[in-house]
Amino acid sequence: MRHQQNVIGTSKWELDTPCLVIAGDILKKNIQTMQAHVTACAKQIRPHAKTHKCSHIAQMQMEAGCTGICVAKVAEAEGLVEKGLQGVLITSPVVTDYKIERLMKCLSRDRELMVVVDNAGNAGKLNAAAEKHGLKLNVLVDLDPGMGRTGVPFSEGLALGKLIDNLPSLRLGGVQCYAGHVQHISSFAERSRASLDWMKQAAEVVGQFRASDLPCKIFTGAGTGTFEIDCRIPELTDLQVGSYTMMDAEYINIGSSQDPSRFTQFPPALTLLTTVISVNRPNFVTVDAGLKALYHHGGTPYVLNPSGSGLQYEWFGDEQGRIITSNSSPKLSLGKVLELVVSHCDPTVNLFDVLYVVRNEIVTDIWPIDLRGKCQ
Amino acid sequence: MRHQQNVIGTSKWELDTPCLVIAGDILKKNIQTMQAHVTACAKQIRPHAKTHKCSHIAQMQMEAGCTGICVAKVAEAEGLVEKGLQGVLITSPVVTDYKIERLMKCLSRDRELMVVVDNAGNAGKLNAAAEKHGLKLNVLVDLDPGMGRTGVPFSEGLALGKLIDNLPSLRLGGVQCYAGHVQHISSFAERSRASLDWMKQAAEVVGQFRASDLPCKIFTGAGTGTFEIDCRIPELTDLQVGSYTMMDAEYINIGSSQDPSRFTQFPPALTLLTTVISVNRPNFVTVDAGLKALYHHGGTPYVLNPSGSGLQYEWFGDEQGRIITSNSSPKLSLGKVLELVVSHCDPTVNLFDVLYVVRNEIVTDIWPIDLRGKCQ
Repeated sequence: MRHQQNVIGTSKWELDTPCLVIAGDILKKNIQTMQAHVTACAKQIRPHAKTHKCSHIAQMQMEAGCTGICVAKVAEAEGLVEKGLQGVLITSPVVTDYKIERLMKCLSRDRELMVVVDNAGNAGKLNAAAEKHGLKLNVLVDLDPGMGRTGVPFSEGLALGKLIDNLPSLRLGGVQCYAGHVQHISSFAERSRASLDWMKQAAEVVGQFRASDLPCKIFTGAGTGTFEIDCRIPELTDLQVGSYTMMDAEYINIGSSQDPSRFTQFPPALTLLTTVISVNRPNFVTVDAGLKALYHHGGTPYVLNPSGSGLQYEWFGDEQGRIITSNSSPKLSLGKVLELVVSHCDPTVNLFDVLYVVRNEIVTDIWPIDLRGKCQ
Repeated sequence: MRHQQNVIGTSKWELDTPCLVIAGDILKKNIQTMQAHVTACAKQIRPHAKTHKCSHIAQMQMEAGCTGICVAKVAEAEGLVEKGLQGVLITSPVVTDYKIERLMKCLSRDRELMVVVDNAGNAGKLNAAAEKHGLKLNVLVDLDPGMGRTGVPFSEGLALGKLIDNLPSLRLGGVQCYAGHVQHISSFAERSRASLDWMKQAAEVVGQFRASDLPCKIFTGAGTGTFEIDCRIPELTDLQVGSYTMMDAEYINIGSSQDPSRFTQFPPALTLLTTVISVNRPNFVTVDAGLKALYHHGGTPYVLNPSGSGLQYEWFGDEQGRIITSNSSPKLSLGKVLELVVSHCDPTVNLFDVLYVVRNEIVTDIWPIDLRGKCQ
């Protein structure tokens, strides 16, 4: 891992680019804002580390009062458990023998570790592995909110719950229902209708569990896009929010309860710095951040700084981007550094090794993106 | 960097997924095929390491007879120079003081190192830095083939060449003209017309250099998509081909001199293995490779194995993909491993730490993707 070692105390504008910068005060405020809202709703946060891929931020979230931490993959769970984090939930099924063995190693260090299940055969394999290791594995029934990515249909949730409850080395914790496909619906009203529709059906499964005396302490779901909406579901216990920490153009451009066209509650803490490297055209300049520095997904990055300048980022290949200028734009000379809000934070963070932490434009710390590349 | 250490000698189908696999024999053959073609045209190869990001493959290319090696960024040059590779060309302008200092460090270890220049002020800065370090820096005039990403207009090439030739610590090597925007034009005939049009204009600048007694040993350009086309330009000295080593769906789906709808000369050496993790829907299954394992660019990955199965990959979020099945498809059970050709090799390779090398489906080696993430 290569990064600039001697930059603490210097201006962020002197950082080598392209690089990711995180505004420490905004990050902290975003974590507090979400925690305050969710606590006021008498619910908890189980934040998703797939967004920031950074055990340091996960630790900050836990210290702010979160009930546990979500990851998408076993390799991410390993990374957090190695750093001493406890209460990890793996939000995708773990199906191969090799991964189940690694899951058991994590479980031996984090007895509260949980995994979702959406298949009876998989439940049997997990039970056998836990039994072999003399461990109890906490599992949630994964419910499919209509998109089919993972999870069982709502109508099959109870049966899978009963099956799991009968397996001696599994401990049924409840259900997961994560409606990823509704998080970015632009209209807040439409997003509310769609999310509540799915989450109410999941809540009915929770009711079936209780009526059948099945354990169901946990009903986990929701994302940053539905953090206010899903809190209206009484049965929901915790929210798997992730992007609220860093934010990105994709989220900022959807409506919210505060503004029909902007998501305003969480300002962007994550930005990317990029440098002008070619200035031979009248209407644009070329910068050093392309597809390999800004993941091409979720819309287009936008120029945060210089602000109000009318400058626009456009994709321009793997290695470079271009900044469209106008007559009213400031002059962009060779070497000028610009600050962008990324289009989609999760996969963009996954392109870098470190986050440069800044306060008042001064670099105060460097945090490793230690879960970077852990897609297994 | 985490990877499976104990997999040498095992079947590739037992690798933990998602992971990148490289067929060693196909890679070797692709390197030989390109070398043979270019040598027969009395030209040379200066392959682009931005594709594979792997110093081991760069070394193989050099051993096969390449004349040097291209990189897009200073951080990549550092990685190759550290491994002892010589003759590195940085194909984008290097403009900031910090990067120019690092360039000088590379130059002190690789006296043949070259960089492109598209700005008179930048030439002056490079000259001053080289003078300060008591070094001579080889530079090429970067010519813009109409896309404006980097380079000066053809009409300004000679003037910049003369300016550079007068700077005592710069050594003018010739010109670069890389037409990135024509490489993927689907029709071979149209691509030929477009590329020859730009490259002939660059060749005229070479003629102007010679008529003015300016040094011009090098006219470098071309990519995998134009490797046959650009060899017809007499003035061209070397080809900056990259993707031919690994290949991807984006290139395979363009026409070639052999087939109007397929690029057939270089079979895919790079593939991605992915595992079925959810099977609750009748018409598709979910696999463990999403946007963070397959870069979302250049079209869609396709299923290579099982072959002829009619299975189709579709994007399905950051962490997962889905495989569309049909009545005639083989049954895809939980844990089944599929092999895909990636959509765009360059940014996908940049998502992983290692390449698993296989021969006859057995893992024979693990190569670090040691330039991964070096976008600075």
